[in-house]
Amino acid sequence: MAKKVAVLGAGNGGCAFAGHLATKGFEVGLYEDPKFEVEGIKEAGGIELSGKFEGFGRLSKVSTDIGEVMLGADVVMVVVPAFAQSIIMERALPYLEDGQVVVFNPDNFASLVFRKMLNSEGVKKDIKIAGTASLLYACVKISPTNVEIHYVKDVMFVAALPATDNDVVVQSLRDIYSSLVPQGNVLEVSFGNINQILHCPAAVLNAGRIEDTKGDFMFYWEGMTESVCRVMQTMDEEKIRVAEKVGFKLMSTHDYLKHFYQSEKPGIDLHDFVTHSRAHGGRGPDAPKDLHYRYVSEDVPYGLVPISLFAEEVDVPTPAIDSIITLASILNETDYLEEGRSMEELGLSGKSRTEILELIERGGR
Amino acid sequence: MAKKVAVLGAGNGGCAFAGHLATKGFEVGLYEDPKFEVEGIKEAGGIELSGKFEGFGRLSKVSTDIGEVMLGADVVMVVVPAFAQSIIMERALPYLEDGQVVVFNPDNFASLVFRKMLNSEGVKKDIKIAGTASLLYACVKISPTNVEIHYVKDVMFVAALPATDNDVVVQSLRDIYSSLVPQGNVLEVSFGNINQILHCPAAVLNAGRIEDTKGDFMFYWEGMTESVCRVMQTMDEEKIRVAEKVGFKLMSTHDYLKHFYQSEKPGIDLHDFVTHSRAHGGRGPDAPKDLHYRYVSEDVPYGLVPISLFAEEVDVPTPAIDSIITLASILNETDYLEEGRSMEELGLSGKSRTEILELIERGGR
Repeated sequence: MAKKVAVLGAGNGGCAFAGHLATKGFEVGLYEDPKFEVEGIKEAGGIELSGKFEGFGRLSKVSTDIGEVMLGADVVMVVVPAFAQSIIMERALPYLEDGQVVVFNPDNFASLVFRKMLNSEGVKKDIKIAGTASLLYACVKISPTNVEIHYVKDVMFVAALPATDNDVVVQSLRDIYSSLVPQGNVLEVSFGNINQILHCPAAVLNAGRIEDTKGDFMFYWEGMTESVCRVMQTMDEEKIRVAEKVGFKLMSTHDYLKHFYQSEKPGIDLHDFVTHSRAHGGRGPDAPKDLHYRYVSEDVPYGLVPISLFAEEVDVPTPAIDSIITLASILNETDYLEEGRSMEELGLSGKSRTEILELIERGGR
Repeated sequence: MAKKVAVLGAGNGGCAFAGHLATKGFEVGLYEDPKFEVEGIKEAGGIELSGKFEGFGRLSKVSTDIGEVMLGADVVMVVVPAFAQSIIMERALPYLEDGQVVVFNPDNFASLVFRKMLNSEGVKKDIKIAGTASLLYACVKISPTNVEIHYVKDVMFVAALPATDNDVVVQSLRDIYSSLVPQGNVLEVSFGNINQILHCPAAVLNAGRIEDTKGDFMFYWEGMTESVCRVMQTMDEEKIRVAEKVGFKLMSTHDYLKHFYQSEKPGIDLHDFVTHSRAHGGRGPDAPKDLHYRYVSEDVPYGLVPISLFAEEVDVPTPAIDSIITLASILNETDYLEEGRSMEELGLSGKSRTEILELIERGGR
């Protein structure tokens, strides 16, 4: 019997997962919030793929009823923007089944939020929780039923919470992610989301251009100049120092990129990579049309903010990261420190460094 | 006998002062550092004016010997970038004469640096020290001997150090600055330099565009978008709070602009003013060609940094100002906090708020 996958979220990423996994023979159900439109997919019976893959992924179910989609699923893929993760978790809660693996794509610290929710709701079912460092697909919906996939990352980093579940989770996901590489723990995975380093400073340090031209330039190739990349690089080094002090080793963003995009030229440094990568530019203007785009509204509160909070915990200064958070907040009239993931929400507030590591490694309280 | 003015510095501003004052009948000597070229002006015997004024300002002296130019001068106008102010002060020191008024255009805290120098060198001469909030002229040299003046500010704010000298200084400068308005003290003047608020955030938040296009956009009209102006506005509010806590009242940058440029539309807010002001745009691309331009290399260390240091003294948080200093430092690989004006250099380190006010108001130690 084919493995049953529930994909929660029918945006660019969710549709890519659903369509692609269906063409690969999985039995796929797709859930979307009733306030978004999935009638087109329902009528078509599936998702058309173009770009890297051609084909039609016939879905077993398309629904705005989350319970219906989760019923009997082996793997539940949560593929929604970070700000919607908690809402989806709450909706999914009553329909969880023993033995299900719930994967956050990408994690952005959601696995910790979910674990806390399961604990506080007293859920006793045997659920495995995992998160990835990045979205598997570089993709975009070109019509309501058609997803164009530009690139499938050559490596996908994943970890379970607690890390002692890594083996069983990796085993159950191996046919979904063809090049799975387990990481030490979910913090490594969430810290390892390169969007924080790539998107946030490039948006802030091009704020005037984004707003003035409404995104009429190549975000990577033209926006990530040498000086802008120097800020990225500094933020990356700050993040690596925080991780080290928390107790795990983090790769540089440049190294992550080299793993993810192995057919690209490795580049001599971050700037060289991002301004030449064909996966990231060369198809014309692609910068955000305004500063409320997820490069800021998602990646700052759900990426940079928790890292800055961890930095405070372990007493590592992160002036570059904090400056970008501060300016992004002013630019968008939104207090991202207030809005973003808090240590409380992650279930880590008041915990020592050792207790945090114990919790993510072995599930200790 | 005509009043004798020594202009120190033959850049855009210095040449505008020298040429314009000469046409107005002052006896003007012009000094420039030997490493810059003034042979052209020397041969021509003066400076050609165009733009707002037409005419030839014949100079009584053009020299790379500072003593020769300062000899017998009633007023010494220092018109050099902030980073050159200390060098000029040191060179001028041996040639100061009783009764001379030394004016820093604009001050950028130079009057405090100069006073400290006079004290530590034990200079007993009767020298009046003053500074302005801004450069009088919006101008540019279009050839080695020709300055085009776009605008003469309608109001020029000035203060003496100590403020008890305000009356005598204002009296001696009134024929030079036609619309002189004395300020409470030199801190009000230096805090009141609007370049800190206009130039620094606009450069940093357009860093990618500046570097990618080499300045091919209108810095004010296109670079100062609504969100960028929100950062300016926040920095301005921080600065006003610091001033208030130190003990003086500061106008908003928008109000300064309305005073300086009275023929412009006042605008409903800062953004409305800067994106419509004919003095600041509409003549085509004028953004800096790179990030080492004085909008960053001068205005950050000599404008924002001392304000941030005062903020620390009086315990007022300035997150937006500090974020811009941090990012500018990384963008230009220069530690502007280290390079900029220090409380030590201003002769204020270890002094209480009351001692500082006493010193700037009445010259107390």
